[in-house]
Amino acid sequence: MQYKPLILVSNDDGITSFGIRTLVEIMREIGEVIVVAPDSPQSGMGHAITIGYPLRLDETDIYGDIPAYECSGTPADCVKLAKHFVLKDRNPDLVVSGINHGSNSSISVLYSGTMSAAIEAALEGVPAIGFSLCDYSAKPDFSHIRQYVKQIALHVLHNPIPPGVALNVNFPAKSATPIKGIKLCRQAIAKWKEDFEVRLDPHGRRYFWINGRFINNDKNEETDEWALENNYISIVPCTFDLTHYEALKSINMNALIAEQPHKV
Amino acid sequence: MQYKPLILVSNDDGITSFGIRTLVEIMREIGEVIVVAPDSPQSGMGHAITIGYPLRLDETDIYGDIPAYECSGTPADCVKLAKHFVLKDRNPDLVVSGINHGSNSSISVLYSGTMSAAIEAALEGVPAIGFSLCDYSAKPDFSHIRQYVKQIALHVLHNPIPPGVALNVNFPAKSATPIKGIKLCRQAIAKWKEDFEVRLDPHGRRYFWINGRFINNDKNEETDEWALENNYISIVPCTFDLTHYEALKSINMNALIAEQPHKV
Repeated sequence: MQYKPLILVSNDDGITSFGIRTLVEIMREIGEVIVVAPDSPQSGMGHAITIGYPLRLDETDIYGDIPAYECSGTPADCVKLAKHFVLKDRNPDLVVSGINHGSNSSISVLYSGTMSAAIEAALEGVPAIGFSLCDYSAKPDFSHIRQYVKQIALHVLHNPIPPGVALNVNFPAKSATPIKGIKLCRQAIAKWKEDFEVRLDPHGRRYFWINGRFINNDKNEETDEWALENNYISIVPCTFDLTHYEALKSINMNALIAEQPHKV
Repeated sequence: MQYKPLILVSNDDGITSFGIRTLVEIMREIGEVIVVAPDSPQSGMGHAITIGYPLRLDETDIYGDIPAYECSGTPADCVKLAKHFVLKDRNPDLVVSGINHGSNSSISVLYSGTMSAAIEAALEGVPAIGFSLCDYSAKPDFSHIRQYVKQIALHVLHNPIPPGVALNVNFPAKSATPIKGIKLCRQAIAKWKEDFEVRLDPHGRRYFWINGRFINNDKNEETDEWALENNYISIVPCTFDLTHYEALKSINMNALIAEQPHKV
């Protein structure tokens, strides 16, 4: 009998979302699947973990014969619990997260719960992929990307990526133009500009909604944004090492460092 | 009259914590201070932002004549609200976050609310520093680091760091040995190994506490961990670009990329 790879599936939109259900369907075609995902939407959670409160983890049969657990915590909590509690001595061959309802390209990777699950897995030395579709609707059309998701997962299973790397895969939304192909990219250096919407509650007290606009001045063809705008799938290999190595070389702190502690 | 730099202060332990109160005291000696910080502890929030719920922001007089606002959101929310709502057309000269009660060295930077405030500022093009003391107590002894905090902030105000860089500054806890000096470092490639503690609630239902152990096999002298273990202050310049540039060059996806979309 052929070896079936063990694939852990998580996400940030919650265990019942259409995106993770689609991902589970695709992954069961290529491996033994286990699902550990948040019991509620966790979009924008970044790499948050739950320290100040205890976590719940409950088995659920919503995926039929596929073992599935819903967790009260963040996507990073889910991967930690999956790895160190649910799977115990078994090591997944692959962790996939998503399919996110909405883009996680460029700077959104930093706020992304989808990618935090993948990066947490990379930290554990497990090959990991976060999948996101540039369509924020609750029931987006995934039909044009299903085969790509499978193909990319199979590629990573058969061609190991370097340890500590998580792939950030973003797909263009379904449109009249077919997807042109796949591009390996760097993250576009763009940002969200926040316009807070101020409202009053029924008691007359002020509250705010974040309402950002995406600002991208990085038009380079090597970026994920360029790829997506031109109807390519973008794949950005991501790291958890935040060291700015160029700055490490260029920043001059000699004057600061030279000062003797006792003279401070 | 001399120009007083505008300094925005935030943190993740909450606006009333001893660490931010100490930081405000130090910063008021060198500039015009404004405080926007979470109204409750936000440790471990990583780069989370609040999308699914509205945010509260209320002025508070706990800092006397210093304008201060407490926010129901995460540290990243605080910086966004400060920049785009509270300060509107004024640009801070410096954003400082902390002083965190506990280390944010090595991989902890990824989970750190303290550093997410600093990184959010860096994204906005504002020089930013996160300060953390390797002491988790509620009222740690900051006496040995006060002058260093001031000195580092003044250094950054007078010697601009490259745009998009946030400094992750960690201080050894107070000990019998005086601090040896300051080291500019890279992030140690270490991780937290989770041992979940399983308990039963009064209703017999299971819950989990995260209880991690820090595992560092990266003993290189260029790392922040080495610096701290040897009683130096560590400064790691951090980026928000998660692209793994080495992997971008080394990963071979030609086979995947070459496949024609219509053949998928």
